[in-house]
Amino acid sequence: MKIKMYDLVGAEDNRAFSPYCWRIRMALAHKKLEVEIIPWHYYEKEKIAFSGQGKVPVIVDGNQVVFDSWNIANYLEQTYPDRPSLFGSSQAQAQALFIQSWNNQIFMQVLFPMVVFNVFEHVHPQDKAYFRETREKFLGKPLEEFRNVKDEQILNFRTIISPLRETLDQQPFLAGEKPNFADYIVFSNFQLARSVSQIKLLDYEDPIYIWCEKMLDLFDGVARQNLGYN
Amino acid sequence: MKIKMYDLVGAEDNRAFSPYCWRIRMALAHKKLEVEIIPWHYYEKEKIAFSGQGKVPVIVDGNQVVFDSWNIANYLEQTYPDRPSLFGSSQAQAQALFIQSWNNQIFMQVLFPMVVFNVFEHVHPQDKAYFRETREKFLGKPLEEFRNVKDEQILNFRTIISPLRETLDQQPFLAGEKPNFADYIVFSNFQLARSVSQIKLLDYEDPIYIWCEKMLDLFDGVARQNLGYN
Repeated sequence: MKIKMYDLVGAEDNRAFSPYCWRIRMALAHKKLEVEIIPWHYYEKEKIAFSGQGKVPVIVDGNQVVFDSWNIANYLEQTYPDRPSLFGSSQAQAQALFIQSWNNQIFMQVLFPMVVFNVFEHVHPQDKAYFRETREKFLGKPLEEFRNVKDEQILNFRTIISPLRETLDQQPFLAGEKPNFADYIVFSNFQLARSVSQIKLLDYEDPIYIWCEKMLDLFDGVARQNLGYN
Repeated sequence: MKIKMYDLVGAEDNRAFSPYCWRIRMALAHKKLEVEIIPWHYYEKEKIAFSGQGKVPVIVDGNQVVFDSWNIANYLEQTYPDRPSLFGSSQAQAQALFIQSWNNQIFMQVLFPMVVFNVFEHVHPQDKAYFRETREKFLGKPLEEFRNVKDEQILNFRTIISPLRETLDQQPFLAGEKPNFADYIVFSNFQLARSVSQIKLLDYEDPIYIWCEKMLDLFDGVARQNLGYN
């Protein structure tokens, strides 16, 4: 039986943009687990109420319900130990938690203001009021103030993510010769940007750009097939 | 035969302060390899000229000469596979490179200006002119301008290292239940600070402080025995 996954999408069902969902889409493909994607919108809170909370990703695996992307990754790793490992070792799993903290706190903090207006443009019409209200409360400003991305924001972004660049300049993936969950965590931010925004975050010769292209090709191009911009 | 390691020290032979040397001291202890420490000062370039370059750490293992802390860690891992692993898996080793990049670029960038004057105070008298010249060239200002550390620098430092805090709030070490080379890399910065400076970088209840105390206790307290401040 396929695992079901509730996945946040925009106005179109194949414009998935949640970075927390994308890392799980990649993780499921990595573990060669079949998945049935259930497109989900913010206004459909009642559809995932059975999980006891209101955020995606949520997966349903037989009679198991799991939410929170880190929990889901751990659940998949424990439940399917015969499938390709998402981490490779307990040490790599522990270190992935540091990479996730850096990703969610530092990387996302500079990326989010650059794409939040584009996300607003692409969410389902019935989600727009909710998205505006919650994000304006969080950001403390009208969304329109984030419409124009300044060159200096992009340059600052490129500087902030320099540890990623230095690493990918020395090896093909964060996890070495092959990607693992650490790669999926960080790539998912770029996939968010790609799904809604046309800004050129990276130069073509940037090792991070080259890595992103490889990530988009993984698993028969599952990430590349998502609606987005190049 | 013991491995020989050239280790940068201050005016006193047991005030080792190089973070690049400290991660190797910890790595050698982790692998239960006996070491003969050769105290070294910047003015003794000719003593390590046999390595073909001018920086420590340098180790001499029989007829093998290895320099650069990352290279040394890899050399030890490959040469002594029967000893406790420094990484645990190739994936963890690859991910440690990201942690090292973050450590050297981001963490060190905020820490270094806060301790550079204290390092100057503690280096060997014959090293002072060299240290002043090279660091003032790098920093673009007289060392005296770094004498007073502002409260806001400390607060900024604590914010910058928040991914480390979030990780250590969830597990005992960066590598999980037991420390590995990723822990030694990051701890070595705190050991630099401890060896020369009295500033209170962390609150006692900070998970990072608690982790540092555990790191100081490792391997019969090898790091704690080094001259320093608490």
